Amino acid sequence: PPGPLQPPGLPLAPCRSFSNNKIQVELDESSGVATMKFKSPPVNSLSLEFLTEFSIGLEKLQNNRACRGVIITSALPKIFSSGLDISEMCGKSMEHYTEFWRAVQEMWLRLYGSSLVTVAAINGASPAGGCLVALSCDYRIMVENPKFSIGLNETQLGITAPFWFKDTFVNVVGHRTAERSLQLGSLHTAPEAHRLGLVDELVPEEKLMEKAAAVMAQWLAIPDHARQITKTMMRKATLDHLVAHREEDIKHFTTFISKESIQKSLRMYMEMLKKRK
Amino acid sequence: PPGPLQPPGLPLAPCRSFSNNKIQVELDESSGVATMKFKSPPVNSLSLEFLTEFSIGLEKLQNNRACRGVIITSALPKIFSSGLDISEMCGKSMEHYTEFWRAVQEMWLRLYGSSLVTVAAINGASPAGGCLVALSCDYRIMVENPKFSIGLNETQLGITAPFWFKDTFVNVVGHRTAERSLQLGSLHTAPEAHRLGLVDELVPEEKLMEKAAAVMAQWLAIPDHARQITKTMMRKATLDHLVAHREEDIKHFTTFISKESIQKSLRMYMEMLKKRK
Amino acid sequence: PPGPLQPPGLPLAPCRSFSNNKIQVELDESSGVATMKFKSPPVNSLSLEFLTEFSIGLEKLQNNRACRGVIITSALPKIFSSGLDISEMCGKSMEHYTEFWRAVQEMWLRLYGSSLVTVAAINGASPAGGCLVALSCDYRIMVENPKFSIGLNETQLGITAPFWFKDTFVNVVGHRTAERSLQLGSLHTAPEAHRLGLVDELVPEEKLMEKAAAVMAQWLAIPDHARQITKTMMRKATLDHLVAHREEDIKHFTTFISKESIQKSLRMYMEMLKKRK
Repeated sequence: PPGPLQPPGLPLAPCRSFSNNKIQVELDESSGVATMKFKSPPVNSLSLEFLTEFSIGLEKLQNNRACRGVIITSALPKIFSSGLDISEMCGKSMEHYTEFWRAVQEMWLRLYGSSLVTVAAINGASPAGGCLVALSCDYRIMVENPKFSIGLNETQLGITAPFWFKDTFVNVVGHRTAERSLQLGSLHTAPEAHRLGLVDELVPEEKLMEKAAAVMAQWLAIPDHARQITKTMMRKATLDHLVAHREEDIKHFTTFISKESIQKSLRMYMEMLKKRK
Repeated sequence: PPGPLQPPGLPLAPCRSFSNNKIQVELDESSGVATMKFKSPPVNSLSLEFLTEFSIGLEKLQNNRACRGVIITSALPKIFSSGLDISEMCGKSMEHYTEFWRAVQEMWLRLYGSSLVTVAAINGASPAGGCLVALSCDYRIMVENPKFSIGLNETQLGITAPFWFKDTFVNVVGHRTAERSLQLGSLHTAPEAHRLGLVDELVPEEKLMEKAAAVMAQWLAIPDHARQITKTMMRKATLDHLVAHREEDIKHFTTFISKESIQKSLRMYMEMLKKRK
Repeated sequence: PPGPLQPPGLPLAPCRSFSNNKIQVELDESSGVATMKFKSPPVNSLSLEFLTEFSIGLEKLQNNRACRGVIITSALPKIFSSGLDISEMCGKSMEHYTEFWRAVQEMWLRLYGSSLVTVAAINGASPAGGCLVALSCDYRIMVENPKFSIGLNETQLGITAPFWFKDTFVNVVGHRTAERSLQLGSLHTAPEAHRLGLVDELVPEEKLMEKAAAVMAQWLAIPDHARQITKTMMRKATLDHLVAHREEDIKHFTTFISKESIQKSLRMYMEMLKKRK
């Protein structure tokens, strides 16, 4: 049954192009622990299709009585997730922007509001939306490689994180660190992220999944109902904030993103990414 | 006179079984500093009787013009307070649960809202309600013994801390530490508690009361009225939150605690405690 | 044009005694960086005249398209700013207190709400209102000299910081540090202030302006519009809090400050300052 954290009446965004191959999901029924592995080359970007699959996957696990927790990681080397897919925000119709943004909201509402124990095993770079996925979990373990960085770097691209990315960030690192990091669009190396409290723990790459399983076992030692009520108590106000302003937030995003100046910035950024390859 | 922090119109819970032997109160009239020593063997658990005596004691000090500050500590070895008395929550009537919970609220409103300088001298274990008492003071000094632990460990018992325990905790350690620690029901060793900011200072056991007196003197060097207005400014919203939802919170507690599944958990926990002895 | 952070409809306080010699303002048009140097001997106290000049200076820079950021520092040795000018609060008329307090609010609304990048280069002591100026900037660099201290020490003088000083402080250092530091009226040495997060960085005195310029360049590397929207998102609720209660806050200040007991404290404090010289 949906946990107490699931905001009621959240229908899934209509899913036209459903596929089931961007995220590998495995459930170990003996432990009750599922693993979701992002596998959408080259960089696990959060496209409409990916987000839809992610939300459906989270819903299925949430409704599966055999599942009590989920470890989220990447099946690709060096990248956790590159964040929102910029091609979904560039040169498309207002209808498309609306559908896309609703899918981003949906994913966050399901993940931040999940009654499952959620552990992010961050095995690569995790900018912008990738960072949001990690921030929305109960616990964050990151590979100690200083080449991997994490942060809400939207301002560097000339765009901005919405209020609920900010709320999630403030809940993890506090107001001051969030203010500075969000304005600068900082990408923090793993050691820096650990110092700021943005991730809870650093481990050598080869120990990551073992550590994630150990942390999960620790959280699952707590009776589910007591842990879930407590999680709701901590997160409900933040979730309600978006639920109450969801349509307004979509309107705000679609208006902002369709501005010619913003479209131009995004096109230039995509050109730069293409040249890099 | 009641300080500016005392929410108006808070009559004491009716006190049927008043006694005066669970807490030793001494006031040094020359310094204006009172000491409250919890002395209710075996573990200073917060029974209805204890809470009533505690609230009355706080009210008397508050109304005594000779008193400007209070140091709260334990007269028993190895334990500060074991928290709410589980026998008050187990196998009793709804009327009893109501009376008990009102007394818990009362104690917190008086302590967190006290206009006196309040210093916790934590000389032993301080789980759950014991931790709340410490969190509600202005300053926390703990014996550095790593065998002594402190935390809001309710979830470990299958129950949950109410919102105002959480609010008090968040005010001290911030949102992230509170979210993790409350969900896991963590008991932190003294050094860990210090690292998290849950206590302000660690000292060797034999220096505890001397240090508490020195800290008290530092706080009393500030003009009372300026300090009290500032304390009100920092704590009023948190106090008002409970004052505005007090009956609702009682209803919520009594409904939750009287559930058969919760009663069963508590009975099992009490059996375990008995066997331990 | 006024940036998005400027609360609409904030007319400048009527400026009777305008002068232009308490703050030196220089704008480097090539970099877009202005420097404001406080030069009001002996201690850069925030008099009505100083505050008016400061607000006008901030407004001019805000409206100057060539300006993108401002570094705030002192032209005097050993002092950044001593805070609100006590002589403005002592032995004057209610009309004067009203005008003075409105000017304090005005300055903070303009500085905390500035859409420019604001960097405080703190080259000396910075108590009370001086600390508020620093807290209201985007970034704080302080000379590492442990003889320089910073903090909201109002309670030591028997007065109290208003709620918006407190809100600004909590946003920087968090609830717990603010509660303790405000009640005690603590002045923190530079190293302590750095440890608490009250300042972001310490540097040797001779490196201060160079460092401030480097930090400014880092912030200016972010597209203005994205940075400004993000800054608004972080600060709007705190600004709105004062805007909504501005007249109430003036009333509260003027009533408090005109009390005979407070006037007496302030007179004694001024006597003490005079004797020190």
